[in-house]
Amino acid sequence: MTVTPTPADKFSFGLWTIGWVGQDQFGSASREPLDVVEAVEKLAEIGAYGLTFHDNDLFPFEATDVERSRQIGRLTKALADTGVTVPMITTNLFSHPVFKDGGVTSNDRAVRRFALRKLLRNIDLAAELGAETFVMWGGREGAEFDAAKDVQAALARYREGANLLAQYVTDQGYHLRFAIEPKPNEPRGDILLPTVGHAIAWIGTLDQPNLFGVNPEVGHEQMAGLNFTHGIAQALDAGKLFHIDLNGQRSIKFDQDLVFGHGDLQNAFSLVDLLENGGPGGGPAYTGPRHFDYKPSRTEDYNGVWESARANMRMYLILKDRAAAFRADPEVQEALAAAKVAELSEPTLNPGETYTDLLADASAYEDFDAASYYNGKGFGFVKIQQLMLEHLMGARG
Amino acid sequence: MTVTPTPADKFSFGLWTIGWVGQDQFGSASREPLDVVEAVEKLAEIGAYGLTFHDNDLFPFEATDVERSRQIGRLTKALADTGVTVPMITTNLFSHPVFKDGGVTSNDRAVRRFALRKLLRNIDLAAELGAETFVMWGGREGAEFDAAKDVQAALARYREGANLLAQYVTDQGYHLRFAIEPKPNEPRGDILLPTVGHAIAWIGTLDQPNLFGVNPEVGHEQMAGLNFTHGIAQALDAGKLFHIDLNGQRSIKFDQDLVFGHGDLQNAFSLVDLLENGGPGGGPAYTGPRHFDYKPSRTEDYNGVWESARANMRMYLILKDRAAAFRADPEVQEALAAAKVAELSEPTLNPGETYTDLLADASAYEDFDAASYYNGKGFGFVKIQQLMLEHLMGARG
Amino acid sequence: MTVTPTPADKFSFGLWTIGWVGQDQFGSASREPLDVVEAVEKLAEIGAYGLTFHDNDLFPFEATDVERSRQIGRLTKALADTGVTVPMITTNLFSHPVFKDGGVTSNDRAVRRFALRKLLRNIDLAAELGAETFVMWGGREGAEFDAAKDVQAALARYREGANLLAQYVTDQGYHLRFAIEPKPNEPRGDILLPTVGHAIAWIGTLDQPNLFGVNPEVGHEQMAGLNFTHGIAQALDAGKLFHIDLNGQRSIKFDQDLVFGHGDLQNAFSLVDLLENGGPGGGPAYTGPRHFDYKPSRTEDYNGVWESARANMRMYLILKDRAAAFRADPEVQEALAAAKVAELSEPTLNPGETYTDLLADASAYEDFDAASYYNGKGFGFVKIQQLMLEHLMGARG
Amino acid sequence: MTVTPTPADKFSFGLWTIGWVGQDQFGSASREPLDVVEAVEKLAEIGAYGLTFHDNDLFPFEATDVERSRQIGRLTKALADTGVTVPMITTNLFSHPVFKDGGVTSNDRAVRRFALRKLLRNIDLAAELGAETFVMWGGREGAEFDAAKDVQAALARYREGANLLAQYVTDQGYHLRFAIEPKPNEPRGDILLPTVGHAIAWIGTLDQPNLFGVNPEVGHEQMAGLNFTHGIAQALDAGKLFHIDLNGQRSIKFDQDLVFGHGDLQNAFSLVDLLENGGPGGGPAYTGPRHFDYKPSRTEDYNGVWESARANMRMYLILKDRAAAFRADPEVQEALAAAKVAELSEPTLNPGETYTDLLADASAYEDFDAASYYNGKGFGFVKIQQLMLEHLMGARG
Repeated sequence: MTVTPTPADKFSFGLWTIGWVGQDQFGSASREPLDVVEAVEKLAEIGAYGLTFHDNDLFPFEATDVERSRQIGRLTKALADTGVTVPMITTNLFSHPVFKDGGVTSNDRAVRRFALRKLLRNIDLAAELGAETFVMWGGREGAEFDAAKDVQAALARYREGANLLAQYVTDQGYHLRFAIEPKPNEPRGDILLPTVGHAIAWIGTLDQPNLFGVNPEVGHEQMAGLNFTHGIAQALDAGKLFHIDLNGQRSIKFDQDLVFGHGDLQNAFSLVDLLENGGPGGGPAYTGPRHFDYKPSRTEDYNGVWESARANMRMYLILKDRAAAFRADPEVQEALAAAKVAELSEPTLNPGETYTDLLADASAYEDFDAASYYNGKGFGFVKIQQLMLEHLMGARG
Repeated sequence: MTVTPTPADKFSFGLWTIGWVGQDQFGSASREPLDVVEAVEKLAEIGAYGLTFHDNDLFPFEATDVERSRQIGRLTKALADTGVTVPMITTNLFSHPVFKDGGVTSNDRAVRRFALRKLLRNIDLAAELGAETFVMWGGREGAEFDAAKDVQAALARYREGANLLAQYVTDQGYHLRFAIEPKPNEPRGDILLPTVGHAIAWIGTLDQPNLFGVNPEVGHEQMAGLNFTHGIAQALDAGKLFHIDLNGQRSIKFDQDLVFGHGDLQNAFSLVDLLENGGPGGGPAYTGPRHFDYKPSRTEDYNGVWESARANMRMYLILKDRAAAFRADPEVQEALAAAKVAELSEPTLNPGETYTDLLADASAYEDFDAASYYNGKGFGFVKIQQLMLEHLMGARG
Repeated sequence: MTVTPTPADKFSFGLWTIGWVGQDQFGSASREPLDVVEAVEKLAEIGAYGLTFHDNDLFPFEATDVERSRQIGRLTKALADTGVTVPMITTNLFSHPVFKDGGVTSNDRAVRRFALRKLLRNIDLAAELGAETFVMWGGREGAEFDAAKDVQAALARYREGANLLAQYVTDQGYHLRFAIEPKPNEPRGDILLPTVGHAIAWIGTLDQPNLFGVNPEVGHEQMAGLNFTHGIAQALDAGKLFHIDLNGQRSIKFDQDLVFGHGDLQNAFSLVDLLENGGPGGGPAYTGPRHFDYKPSRTEDYNGVWESARANMRMYLILKDRAAAFRADPEVQEALAAAKVAELSEPTLNPGETYTDLLADASAYEDFDAASYYNGKGFGFVKIQQLMLEHLMGARG
Repeated sequence: MTVTPTPADKFSFGLWTIGWVGQDQFGSASREPLDVVEAVEKLAEIGAYGLTFHDNDLFPFEATDVERSRQIGRLTKALADTGVTVPMITTNLFSHPVFKDGGVTSNDRAVRRFALRKLLRNIDLAAELGAETFVMWGGREGAEFDAAKDVQAALARYREGANLLAQYVTDQGYHLRFAIEPKPNEPRGDILLPTVGHAIAWIGTLDQPNLFGVNPEVGHEQMAGLNFTHGIAQALDAGKLFHIDLNGQRSIKFDQDLVFGHGDLQNAFSLVDLLENGGPGGGPAYTGPRHFDYKPSRTEDYNGVWESARANMRMYLILKDRAAAFRADPEVQEALAAAKVAELSEPTLNPGETYTDLLADASAYEDFDAASYYNGKGFGFVKIQQLMLEHLMGARG
């Protein structure tokens, strides 16, 4: 088993992850800020291939143009020196008080205009740095109080903004696609486009839906009690998995942003299996960056920060190895066959069959023995689950 | 305040709701079965306008054609006698052991074919009874174990089935639309199309998406911690609110199916306000049946059953009254204006404005005073919330 | 209905509530700090009777003795000037990085000793200011990772600390009782003593359990999906409700700290009913401070802060009024009687009856007609619920 | 690694687990009933040592004395034939409609008297069969509606009942202890004594608290989002872990009753580690039965039932093996030392130290360098977590 990451693994990290200083809702920073150059060098050293960031991770909200350019220059040089890439960029529309009611859906129209300008400027930067994906996480696009937000209007404004950005990208000829990042709540009581499903549904109302996909985050879906692997499968089915945020969450609570695999371990296994190997019936896999969006525990100093960064990649690689063994195991294949897992990929209708044919097929209904499913025809699903967990635990053979 | 329901209120009830005998996961029935004729007569008496049902609410799974026809005849007569309508019909693909791994997405292809036949037969019945909506709740379309279900394949089979049914309805010239009912879990560990968002997203992949919308249920979204009113607003925005299931749920737990309004009361207020009055900025309201999908508490006998049925309608009508007063209150209007709630309906761009114009508008960015949002420019949202709750509580004036 | 608060209502506010500047996990402060003198004056003006605080709400962690004394002096004068009291004090063992693994249960023994010293110093201040309750919220006493914390050892250290503090208070003759504030998680992944139950259970292991009770917070219990009113009833039953934190929470998610009543409204009603009127069968009510531990929404400026402060008290007083009407309503009393609510206060055994007598009573078992509870003997609970909600909504008569 | 269970492992199963016929809230039985003799023989065959049951698992609620005796006789013979034991018995106070508002806390006093008689009769049976533990799960002791249940009165009646049973057991000289099984909800909206903490707290109010402990169930605590291992540690700390129910749950939702380890795998690891090895600082381990309270998936036939029964034991034994390796690994020991995990077992005070001494120790406060915890003194917790998971996954060396 190889657990030494290389750039070929396409592991990327947010600058705000390894650079999180530990300030949370109830406490002040426990670590000093991390310089972007050190971040890039360190990522290169530990085998990552990419760095991602919000504009204001690199330079402050209040930065002058000179300060902004200087930081971009420092980053660019570090990238060149190390070979690290910037596959994705995103925009901070949530930290400054101006965004207290959101950015592109703030009730305050002047804020919305400002937010669009901030986005456009950051799109230029994304293009300049060669990023392929522009993530939009609407962390403050939401509400606490049902009567204080016209959600239909908010969705319309969100759409207006997205359409404008898409037009801009198209006109500029940028090779950039947008990835919406859903989250159900926190910091707002309820956030718009709360799940992978809501985001894809809303994308269907845009002018250029092909330019938009999703950037699902493990913990965000799990904060709604949803099965992350199921959500990813639906995103793949819809051709909308443009990017992914890997981390860990333990049950429904505040956004924990743990190391990948340090939360729901069995769901992490099935996720890696799906991302790497595609659906068992031949459904598509995922080829983009394996992006970690986590927070190094506030209890750690920088030794712990880098330990945690490495832990993300180790977890992924171990699970990848285990998933491969699971797929290859003849006993697993036998159990999957017994459970008719592959039979689900066979169309329900015969080739060329119409509903008229189906209605005429007595074996499908009139002669079908439904009663035989009582006390018989068990699916053997628990056996598959046990085999999966034994592979996950390296307890086979 | 009028809280006496009439057919004009379009209140409908599932036969499985008032007819629920109280058998749950941990206990046997506490009430005897309810005959459909009595159900119809009683609904007429208490002011409802509609009855809905699954096929096997009316006749058993094992019913012969004769038994089936006899029950349909008895229902039809009762409808004619009372003026009660059947606005919606749905199909039971979850109770019998044959559906233990689902219906249209069962791993077992023979089950899938049987499920399609059962659906087609029930579509004919829906058309025969003049129903306008055909609800599909995929209660067993899901999984407990990640490796035992190919979710991409399952979504493809679901799609295959939906496309077939749509083709059938189109060809038959039936005036029938499909409404997908999402639910995150229970009875399966994870159910496919778990939220309103996922359902609308998946509808976008169908052959005839216009024939499909959603039938959101209050408790189902709240079981995922989602804001139901937000979900309904998104469904309205997408033109997909074909039907609605009203009930009550208290936090994230098993599916409680309480009386409408007996769960999250403030969310019930904002929901009724939205359904009746549309978005505050002019977004569409809802004109279909107000359908109650609840379970009379197992602690009740039939007196309590009918008390609970009436309670659903009383809650709705009281909230409707309160929402009207809320909208009409000048102090509310003033607070909404101060909070710029209506400003969110104004496009962010000026008429005819392009991104080039926006980029040239220094007032939007270069001269924009973001700092003024610190310690100032408060939105006054808490005041709106308090006003809303005081209206809900009838505590104004 | 009187909704103008007076000191007789015993409303108190944490300095950290009205003084919360809006810094959260994802954003910086949206308001400037609030001076304690202004806080006291404003609280007096709006009808509150008490101010509570953590040591470091009043003076910074790094304050010199001179700075500390100066702030205490300013507070003392403001209290004298206004008549506002300090009924409760608590200690900040969670904001500074030194407490990143907790205070009295930190793995680091030096930190634990420091925490005890900080507590002892703050106990002296509590006594000096005449506080009657010393709250201990162990916000960082917990863990993210199961193997990194010896929970049995942690509970022993917590006990060691509590016993020491109790001995100190006893020896000094302070009229001070301790109230443990439970919380299930956030900021730690799991917090020790996560619910009212766990806290009372642990109190039973202390040297002087009589000195310790609980300070339950609405949102904290609801973050675990628990019924807050039930928890308060159990605390009252155990004689352990020493203090209470009133606020609002909407379902299981991050700690929202909304205005009281702005979350689960029906549970707020039953809570106020219990606090004010005691159990319907004569169980004790609550006589201590009605303490609000909430956060004014980050979207608000100081107008909104004070609006929100008033909203807490208005909600409480409206609910108090509605609860009184509910108790007095003859139809409610009839429904409660029908549901045998009072019968639960009658002992199950007859006066003087032993188990031998019970075993000899054929009416209790051999002749008992269990079958009569099928399809009969309904409890009429839904009617009570509906009546309660109609009272809550002011929709009766 | 030995994963073949033997009676020495003390694995026991509820008759209602392997005998669950698959009837759930939304569907009818998918399997035929399991005869108790076959159950016992099969359990012996697969290596279990114990069978547990509710009275009405063995004979129906309506059974005559003759039928009851016959079934007890058949069971007794099967036990003698196989060597299987009955370490625990429990009483069904939740399935029959008579218990629709609970048993010992029903509002209906006649029901409460009946429930006590049913309990007394079952205690005799428990003693007759040599059971050591009498579990009380109050599945219907609760409420859906806050105003319909006087919780203080309910807790008093619960107490009255428990005291009576304890007196009976004492007087009869039975070697039987009671174990309260907490659950937060389902089938009732809220259940009394919802968590391990609430149960232990309430035990403190009983006449003979030493006779009462808890029977925590993995899924029940996790349904409230609580860390099960933490709850078990607190129960051990209080000397109250009398019995345990092992199963699996995936996040906060309905009660899933999955196979042990098929839910939150990392928490299952830390649980087995604690049960087998005790607290890392020497805290007590658990020596009682390893009891599985799970439901074989409704998708399975009896092959799957027995597969799932074996899976419970395999999961436990694999995790036991991994926990032993974790404890023995020098790198783990080094990491635990670096994180000061053992230091938490050292008292915070020096031997003989008083608060006066502590107050005089300048190194504890005046000279303590709190600032050194900023950007330093990291705990290395993430490293421990990663090591734990690598051991769980068998990915070390």
